[in-house]
Amino acid sequence: MIELEKLVTKTDRITAMARRKNALRLHLGEPDFPVPSYVKEEIIGFFKESIEKGYTRYTDPRGIRELREVLSEKLHRKNKIDAGPSQIVVTAGGTAALSLIFRLIAANDYVAIPDPAWFAYPSIIRVAEAKIVRIPENSYNYETLSKITEELRKKEGELKAIVVNSPSNPTGYVYSREELREIIDFAEDYSVFVISDEVYEDYPLTREPISVASINSEKVFSVYSMSKTYGLTGLRIGYLVAPNKELARKITIMQLHTYVCPTSMAQYIALRCIEEKIEEKLLPIWLKEIKTNISLTRKRLSEENIEWKEPMGGIYAWIGLPSIDSWIFARELLEKKLVSVAVGEDFGPRWKSYIRILLAVSNEKYSEGFSRILEFYKEIKEKH
Amino acid sequence: MIELEKLVTKTDRITAMARRKNALRLHLGEPDFPVPSYVKEEIIGFFKESIEKGYTRYTDPRGIRELREVLSEKLHRKNKIDAGPSQIVVTAGGTAALSLIFRLIAANDYVAIPDPAWFAYPSIIRVAEAKIVRIPENSYNYETLSKITEELRKKEGELKAIVVNSPSNPTGYVYSREELREIIDFAEDYSVFVISDEVYEDYPLTREPISVASINSEKVFSVYSMSKTYGLTGLRIGYLVAPNKELARKITIMQLHTYVCPTSMAQYIALRCIEEKIEEKLLPIWLKEIKTNISLTRKRLSEENIEWKEPMGGIYAWIGLPSIDSWIFARELLEKKLVSVAVGEDFGPRWKSYIRILLAVSNEKYSEGFSRILEFYKEIKEKH
Repeated sequence: MIELEKLVTKTDRITAMARRKNALRLHLGEPDFPVPSYVKEEIIGFFKESIEKGYTRYTDPRGIRELREVLSEKLHRKNKIDAGPSQIVVTAGGTAALSLIFRLIAANDYVAIPDPAWFAYPSIIRVAEAKIVRIPENSYNYETLSKITEELRKKEGELKAIVVNSPSNPTGYVYSREELREIIDFAEDYSVFVISDEVYEDYPLTREPISVASINSEKVFSVYSMSKTYGLTGLRIGYLVAPNKELARKITIMQLHTYVCPTSMAQYIALRCIEEKIEEKLLPIWLKEIKTNISLTRKRLSEENIEWKEPMGGIYAWIGLPSIDSWIFARELLEKKLVSVAVGEDFGPRWKSYIRILLAVSNEKYSEGFSRILEFYKEIKEKH
Repeated sequence: MIELEKLVTKTDRITAMARRKNALRLHLGEPDFPVPSYVKEEIIGFFKESIEKGYTRYTDPRGIRELREVLSEKLHRKNKIDAGPSQIVVTAGGTAALSLIFRLIAANDYVAIPDPAWFAYPSIIRVAEAKIVRIPENSYNYETLSKITEELRKKEGELKAIVVNSPSNPTGYVYSREELREIIDFAEDYSVFVISDEVYEDYPLTREPISVASINSEKVFSVYSMSKTYGLTGLRIGYLVAPNKELARKITIMQLHTYVCPTSMAQYIALRCIEEKIEEKLLPIWLKEIKTNISLTRKRLSEENIEWKEPMGGIYAWIGLPSIDSWIFARELLEKKLVSVAVGEDFGPRWKSYIRILLAVSNEKYSEGFSRILEFYKEIKEKH
């Protein structure tokens, strides 16, 4: 049996503490903008339609047909991926999509993830009965990947999939076309799947993200999250594109026997949100606020002579604070300044002096929270 | 890798054919009553509240606190089970609850299921990487169970859990207190878990179902489905009661890393449905229709001299039609009379001459469908 206790991260503990203390929460892994009331009204209207039209039963286990049709059109238009409705599976969020893929293709074998990587990957992979190997973020190249593969084989392990997360959580890195091409070349030569986690696709900053499957889709699973785009993570609607119909069918059978299908009304709401282009009403405003928060961060960090790599996309600032242990830092910060941040080492053991801060919050909230973080960092530094 | 293709049942194929042909569907595994419009209005109101109150984000991975509190009260009142909110996990439907339990306690080992049993059990169990052994429905007694356990041990297998499904899908059997006591005695002596699938608890007919955990909860997981009670299977809200907090916590960690949490708005709707006792507006009417459908079935089967065991609870009629092969019968019936029924052998290889018919439909629909089924049976019999 999996040692489940080990899967509780330090950031999970921060989450619980921050909730108890009602802190200013910058550790969150979801956009924290208020949804405008006219958008709320629209969503309530979509729910009403779903009930009136009878979307109250089990749906097609792949997701309702109309939704997969608009997704196929969206993938073609936005992601340059050609995938018909039968290659798409609507899932109960992006995590569910990842979990189903890992269970299908990597059980008992290895999945490669970046270093640093979103702290839930190791847990999702282990709960899916697979094992992880870490690839340093900037060495997703043919040579490193094949070296790691050969080393695993010596230990009788098999690399089955590589996770590419662009824009990255936590670093905000966006892979270039050349880097993605090299990953695909490797995947084809070594017969390994690429799992392209594109849940932050709607948050481009300084570089436009490219969908891996737009280059070559033969070995690529693409994963998206509707709820991240609309700031409605509670909706639990994501979707995946499989490399072919046969693999989409296998994922569907697994989904059917894991939780049947995503909530029917939520699927319908997702359909209507896409049709009505609700994202166009939200994202421009949100991206503007994120960019203002980045400017503030740049300015303040430079004043303190702290080096920082600015995100090319996504919703996070990933900051190394020299000579701190971020687990101790995060707990004391929460205790003394009532601000929560995500803990570096959850993203990989090498990142003990890093913190991840949510950029997708109002400027007012961010400015207040970030000031308290820097203030506390200076207090600590002065003590030593 | 699991041979997923084998998990597609004959009834799944009937489902697809019945949808294409727009047939009168009596193969369904969910109540098919229309939800009255004033109930729809209430549910739309609950959704509106959920958005206004901000239930739009990831929830506590165990399910929202208020919901677990009303469930704890419901379990105490209705099921005579004493379980606090931290022993309860809200899941994305009953299937999700079962899948998580199987994966936690039985991966690579055996789960015992009835014969006949709901045709999805073997698939859910296999997708959870566990194996099945069948116990004839009326021999869920100490002697049979221990004999089977000993036989598995000879093959180096271990029995980890026994599924009890009362009221049963498909037979409608409801276990007596004495039978349940014997199962519990066995479970304690052999250190095996009992998984009590009580999703049809709200459909008692001639015998009131008893919750296994009300007798002794030490080794018992209880599984419920909210969506079955309200005829809203698309809601995807179920819940489980674990034998103790520690096991509830483990299930929660697995849920978190499989699909995070059930849809937040759906959880809130479930909470409000329970608070407003919506079921009291639906179930008395539905049970009356089911009973009328049973009377009709009894009368017509007796006229044809077909033996039948009437259901003690649940929503199905399970009928053996002498000398038919129900897979051929179901396909031809659908072709010629445009009525769909579930195929006996999906419920266990010994049940080739049985069909399962949904009783939870309007009398008008049932009467029409059932007449066509009998008519077709007589036509076949006359040919031979």
